[in-house]
Amino acid sequence: MRGAVIHAPGDVRFEERDDPKIIHPTDAVIRTVATCVCGSDLWPYRGLEPVDAPHPMGHEYVGIVEEVGSEVRNVRPGQFVVGSFATSDNTCANCLNGWQSSCLHREFMSTCQADYVRIPNAHGTLVATDGHPDGESMPGLLAVSDVMGTGWYAAVAAEVKPGSTAVVVGDGAVGLCGVIAAKELGAERIIAMSRHEPRRKLAVEFGATDIVTERGEEGIARVKELTDGIGADSVLECVGTAEAMRQALRSARPGGNVGFVGVPHEVAVDGQELFFSHVGLRGGPAPVRRFLPDLIDRVLTGRINPGKVFDLTLPLDQVVEGYKAMDERRAIKALLKP
Amino acid sequence: MRGAVIHAPGDVRFEERDDPKIIHPTDAVIRTVATCVCGSDLWPYRGLEPVDAPHPMGHEYVGIVEEVGSEVRNVRPGQFVVGSFATSDNTCANCLNGWQSSCLHREFMSTCQADYVRIPNAHGTLVATDGHPDGESMPGLLAVSDVMGTGWYAAVAAEVKPGSTAVVVGDGAVGLCGVIAAKELGAERIIAMSRHEPRRKLAVEFGATDIVTERGEEGIARVKELTDGIGADSVLECVGTAEAMRQALRSARPGGNVGFVGVPHEVAVDGQELFFSHVGLRGGPAPVRRFLPDLIDRVLTGRINPGKVFDLTLPLDQVVEGYKAMDERRAIKALLKP
Repeated sequence: MRGAVIHAPGDVRFEERDDPKIIHPTDAVIRTVATCVCGSDLWPYRGLEPVDAPHPMGHEYVGIVEEVGSEVRNVRPGQFVVGSFATSDNTCANCLNGWQSSCLHREFMSTCQADYVRIPNAHGTLVATDGHPDGESMPGLLAVSDVMGTGWYAAVAAEVKPGSTAVVVGDGAVGLCGVIAAKELGAERIIAMSRHEPRRKLAVEFGATDIVTERGEEGIARVKELTDGIGADSVLECVGTAEAMRQALRSARPGGNVGFVGVPHEVAVDGQELFFSHVGLRGGPAPVRRFLPDLIDRVLTGRINPGKVFDLTLPLDQVVEGYKAMDERRAIKALLKP
Repeated sequence: MRGAVIHAPGDVRFEERDDPKIIHPTDAVIRTVATCVCGSDLWPYRGLEPVDAPHPMGHEYVGIVEEVGSEVRNVRPGQFVVGSFATSDNTCANCLNGWQSSCLHREFMSTCQADYVRIPNAHGTLVATDGHPDGESMPGLLAVSDVMGTGWYAAVAAEVKPGSTAVVVGDGAVGLCGVIAAKELGAERIIAMSRHEPRRKLAVEFGATDIVTERGEEGIARVKELTDGIGADSVLECVGTAEAMRQALRSARPGGNVGFVGVPHEVAVDGQELFFSHVGLRGGPAPVRRFLPDLIDRVLTGRINPGKVFDLTLPLDQVVEGYKAMDERRAIKALLKP
């Protein structure tokens, strides 16, 4: 089969790879129906994370089950399935607590920009839909496997409540899905920080009530102006840089909450500043599995449409162009079809 | 009047100071009935915080109202009152949100080891008891003004829930009060980290079910052993050092919570470690005012007895001995009577 492999920063290739096989009895192999390029894929692509050796890429997927291991009973060949970028057995103590992305048997997916994918822990990871969803809902279901699940978790971690004010730092696909989540969880005011016209428009379409284009201290001051001088109840940090974290922490009101879902790169939180801020902080790889049934339902019923974050659709064999378009910010997010 | 003044590390003196006066219409002046030495007073005493110029000490107090400013209507001269170490107007947006220790008019108390004390924002800070409480409940009421209020907040910030497992890092007066709070909030298992015999005994008396004497990596491993290998639901960090914070964060389970109430000294939280831990973190100076009526009631009805953390009672003029005894760990906490 064919799939994407990164060889060095800036050097992603679409090449022949071994067909995936069942290795453990809890594995499944799926035929990819749609996959995509993630903002986090750009870290190694841009050389901001090391690429020590060539390795496959991609962790977002929807597909048709081809084969299952002997212990996989929740899905069967032929079913359409959605999973999470983090696999989970869904039975360990952490899974039972709702933290499937800290499953004791967790494996992070990393081979999904390909025709076929092996899903470890398939029994606890994959959720089948009723029948085969139509093409229209496909992008939304794909979004659920990571960016929508992650945006949702950001809002949950930031404790967005009905009637509250939420700020979303980051206008990438996750941030935009964070706007959807904040709205669904009842935020009355949603302040999206964005200076990029097409993203701003989508943020407003998704439910943002205010746009702040300023950054840094000016951005914080603008959020304070919009929130009676004290800051927002909830802040969703969807970037992962030190600047974004500072922005997030200082935009929250005393007693407010920051949910951070951008993988932190060289971020250190000053203990004394956090202390005196009274802000609660929780982050991590989203426990998407916890939210999957609910989010699949919201997509299939048309209540939310996170598939709109895909503003570029390419055949899988043009995956390299997907990386380029996102790197150059010509696209928010590229969907790939095998 | 007389009061404590720190001149340099190790040099606290009991000397003549000006009588406090009403300065603002929201002030009150109280005659101190009891005050005490706080663990945080030891930071400058030990030279771990600079002492740039001589200044009064003390931020814990119960007393009798002597005089009130024209805008103080909640208490009147002759009443017995309890307040917080952080004053608050109890009407600003932060106060209304329950974060009185982030009041927009907050002043931290710092003159309380004295015969008389001026209380800024008295209208939003002081709570009067019905009548004059007996001597037996006095230490408990004094504890409520800081250590018990702070231990309570640590447990609330760590989201202690009925049936949960809580770890308390730090066996000072705040940590011990944290054990009381965890028990009151329904923790089924309370693991106190302590290697100091008298404190261990008090922790058990207050409700600790397990004692861990190990520290650092060994302490973390021991907590994991006691919690099915995954860590505790809630951890109360009651010290303020980098080591204690590390201990706390690594003792919590994925999705668990750390409440930190020791003022952080050179603590930086690594963003990536916090991210992958899935642990929620919230700290700060306790919004004691939020809890005051409830905690006063729990003390007066005998439901809790945090006054036991005072294992040394001295006349106020021996305040210097109070500092020494605590510095040398001969006493957990010294109560001072003018």
